[in-house]
Amino acid sequence: AAGDKLLGGLLAEGFDEASCASRYQSYSYRKDRHRKPSPHLIAKLRSYEELHNRCGPNTEPYKNAVKLLRSDHKDVDSSDCKYVVWISYSGLGNRILSIAATFLYALLTDRVLLVDEGKDMKDLFCEPFPSNSWLLPLDFPLTKQFDSFNQGNSRCYGKMLKDKAVNYSTNSVPSYVYLHVAHDYDAEDKLFFCDDDQSLLSKVPWLVMRTDNYFVPSLFLITAFEQELEKMFPEKATVFHYLGQYLFHPTNAVWGLITRYHQTYLAHADESLGVQVRVFDPRPGPFKHVMDQIRSCTLNQNLLPRVDVKASGFTSSKKNPKSTAILVTSLKLDYSDDLRSMYWEHPTSNGEVVGVYQPSHEEFQQTEKRMHNRKAWAEMYLLSLTDNLVTSAWSTFGYVAQGLGGMKPWILVKTENDTVPDPPCRLAMSMEPCFHAPPLYDCKEKRGTDTGAQVPHVKHCEDVSWGVKVIDPAHDEL
Amino acid sequence: AAGDKLLGGLLAEGFDEASCASRYQSYSYRKDRHRKPSPHLIAKLRSYEELHNRCGPNTEPYKNAVKLLRSDHKDVDSSDCKYVVWISYSGLGNRILSIAATFLYALLTDRVLLVDEGKDMKDLFCEPFPSNSWLLPLDFPLTKQFDSFNQGNSRCYGKMLKDKAVNYSTNSVPSYVYLHVAHDYDAEDKLFFCDDDQSLLSKVPWLVMRTDNYFVPSLFLITAFEQELEKMFPEKATVFHYLGQYLFHPTNAVWGLITRYHQTYLAHADESLGVQVRVFDPRPGPFKHVMDQIRSCTLNQNLLPRVDVKASGFTSSKKNPKSTAILVTSLKLDYSDDLRSMYWEHPTSNGEVVGVYQPSHEEFQQTEKRMHNRKAWAEMYLLSLTDNLVTSAWSTFGYVAQGLGGMKPWILVKTENDTVPDPPCRLAMSMEPCFHAPPLYDCKEKRGTDTGAQVPHVKHCEDVSWGVKVIDPAHDEL
Ligand SMILES: Nc1nc2c(ncn2[C@@H]2O[C@H](COP(=O)(O)OP(=O)(O)O)[C@@H](O)[C@H]2O)c(=O)[nH]1
Ligand SMILES: Nc1nc2c(ncn2[C@@H]2O[C@H](COP(=O)(O)OP(=O)(O)O)[C@@H](O)[C@H]2O)c(=O)[nH]1
Repeated sequence: AAGDKLLGGLLAEGFDEASCASRYQSYSYRKDRHRKPSPHLIAKLRSYEELHNRCGPNTEPYKNAVKLLRSDHKDVDSSDCKYVVWISYSGLGNRILSIAATFLYALLTDRVLLVDEGKDMKDLFCEPFPSNSWLLPLDFPLTKQFDSFNQGNSRCYGKMLKDKAVNYSTNSVPSYVYLHVAHDYDAEDKLFFCDDDQSLLSKVPWLVMRTDNYFVPSLFLITAFEQELEKMFPEKATVFHYLGQYLFHPTNAVWGLITRYHQTYLAHADESLGVQVRVFDPRPGPFKHVMDQIRSCTLNQNLLPRVDVKASGFTSSKKNPKSTAILVTSLKLDYSDDLRSMYWEHPTSNGEVVGVYQPSHEEFQQTEKRMHNRKAWAEMYLLSLTDNLVTSAWSTFGYVAQGLGGMKPWILVKTENDTVPDPPCRLAMSMEPCFHAPPLYDCKEKRGTDTGAQVPHVKHCEDVSWGVKVIDPAHDEL
Repeated sequence: AAGDKLLGGLLAEGFDEASCASRYQSYSYRKDRHRKPSPHLIAKLRSYEELHNRCGPNTEPYKNAVKLLRSDHKDVDSSDCKYVVWISYSGLGNRILSIAATFLYALLTDRVLLVDEGKDMKDLFCEPFPSNSWLLPLDFPLTKQFDSFNQGNSRCYGKMLKDKAVNYSTNSVPSYVYLHVAHDYDAEDKLFFCDDDQSLLSKVPWLVMRTDNYFVPSLFLITAFEQELEKMFPEKATVFHYLGQYLFHPTNAVWGLITRYHQTYLAHADESLGVQVRVFDPRPGPFKHVMDQIRSCTLNQNLLPRVDVKASGFTSSKKNPKSTAILVTSLKLDYSDDLRSMYWEHPTSNGEVVGVYQPSHEEFQQTEKRMHNRKAWAEMYLLSLTDNLVTSAWSTFGYVAQGLGGMKPWILVKTENDTVPDPPCRLAMSMEPCFHAPPLYDCKEKRGTDTGAQVPHVKHCEDVSWGVKVIDPAHDEL
């Protein structure tokens, strides 16, 4: 049905189908989890598309806005178009999450999102908006300075506050401000998440942001955005689920990887389980305790059938036993090897059939290689197509998969002392990604606070204790 | 049908099915290639089974024959049961082939075959004969001396000839003779393949043989066996095909490995291709030229669909495209990785789907490990269940697969100077294994000769130029 194809109205109609086959085909690969975007979100996206069309690259308003960058301060008769520019930065999972967060910020502040294409944006993602590109034009005058945009730059918002180069009561604002919202940002940079600062920044035509964070949970704590977020996301913990599906459509090259792999290895199984293994350990590995952890999580949670270790022999099989495909993604092969051998060497106790598949084993992160990034993106996406998901603590790669797939994953608890944690994994409270570096500051009281305890729908994450994430307390606790 | 289950009468009825599930189930996994064993072969096997039952381990004749070993020469009133004992030796592929050859020799000489169980015979193979075991009893008096059975041993037939300890006209023969028919045997050992020597040896109650050779082709050159072989194998190049299927039934442990793997990864494909990669190179590898060779052989021979390297993109797939499963066996993972990536990264030109599967990658030969040998045996067997087969030159592992499966494989030509040979592979003339170390001697003329040119049905092998193999000239050349 057309409603399915447009994901319940999330996607706009009228794109050219052939140039980005994934956009209108993804629904047929994904389990229907009976969720619908709110009418308000849909309306918001449609009006954003209008804004983007009107103010986006190469429009008159865009050209006028660019002119502002040449003068130091905002002109009176400037256009009403304002922008937020996302600078290409960090690993692919981080990039996807931070673009989604920046897009939500754009929606909330009526800004146009422009994305610095960096090394491989065009290779990985289709254009998400009809009629006009989301890519920052290559002749954007500030691009050459991106490398110098850091916390010491005089246009960095945190630095400006330290230098008292802006004040909250002024009407004169600079034509652009650099926002440093990366993992290493400091107390002043973090004031970005306060109402007063948002009010000041709202006057600045160009915000240029460097971020590797999914900072959405902290947007929920800004009073000015509260109402709008409530209307857009009545089911709160669906922000990345919807914005991710709205923004990130694999290019045909990546869609080829996804659909070929799916058709060849996964489609014929009755059920699928994704297991995303990301080991943050400087030693080379593989680690026996991680293998044990995966086995113990998947078996204890009944995600996989147990094997009959004593019966190494032949057990006559049922006619059409249930089959499960395990999709393992990992930089190393050993973890899937371990599962594959287990189900090869022993029959399952219930006669079910379990196949284990791993698309690649790239050995180490190689962010500069085209095919490497294509495969990473294809694998996140393939994970998102599985019926159930096990992810690794701390990994944005896993967050992308769970979010696109609309699944609460089982999170493999971070190991300590090379032992299997007890419990080995915990069911996530929501499918939302975790914000790893939230401010711990109460803007009104102007003092430190526990940001994970201010409202019922922003809680500390399961995997990163100081991180925060959006949940739906009605479903999950309270 | 029952006829299928017994492989056209090749197998005897009446075995306990549960204790060796593979015996009567194998037919349902194997492509029917419309071959039938000759009535004479069937009769021969049934009468061998009677002989084995009457003379086998722990029967009165066996006990009497064992007594002979205590005296130095054969008694007049000895039983009419004679034996050939196969000593456990060499890699698994070699063992399977040499046991089959020794069994054919037993059939031709009315001897009882007894197999030294070595490290893992019981773990790998079911008993092939009804009513009595083929395993040499553990208290066999000569077993302790097996280690000393070599070319220097005074009971070694070649040595006896050199020492003139036997002569062709005598009636007095020793109670046992050690036959050295291993790859390193010498001119006198090789006289085993002459009529006069066979006539002498026919009087010896116990022949104890160490061999890693598939010496069947040379049995075809012994005048005394000619007629019988002709009757047993009217289609000549089916010797190992039938004897292998008759003798080697995977134990339930191994059958579990075979059937689970088949059901999980291979059964749903429309067609399957086995690719056996065995690289005899002291350097660790992997070798780029071997990858190129595999690609070029399989694509040139239309064993696999070509990929569209330019179209890395998405090509909308047919509704139910033909699917091929490639089963790769190799000690290393790199060769299957290469194929898997190729079919993942690019669509096929004809829209077909190709999955690549490799059960294990053991890295190096570990003949002493139980699970290692089980897996090696399971993999040879799985290869034999494929529709088409590519094998590596020189490898008995591949010979076993082709023989059991009844396929003429495409043999990857042995590489030289790290380049892809031209042609990269050649279709085998027959499905028979190659005898790597045949005598090059004309017994009648008592001089060297080209054993591959004496009769039309014994020719030099495709892969080992000095080796010989049985072919059917009517089909293949002449
Ligand atoms: N293909 C592939 N690449 C991976 C995998 N795990 C990590 N990588 C690579 O390492 C990068 C990790 O960075 P990121 O995506 O930000 O995820 P994170 O570091 O886990 O939060 C990925 O983008 C890939 O380049 C994997 O399972 N498959
Ligand atoms: N599992 C497995 N083992 C192999 C493979 N190739 C070689 N081996 C091991 O190496 C041995 C090779 O000896 P053999 O079977 O006599 O074959 P050949 O050396 O190729 O003639 C096997 O028996 C296995 O133990 C393979 O593809 N898979």
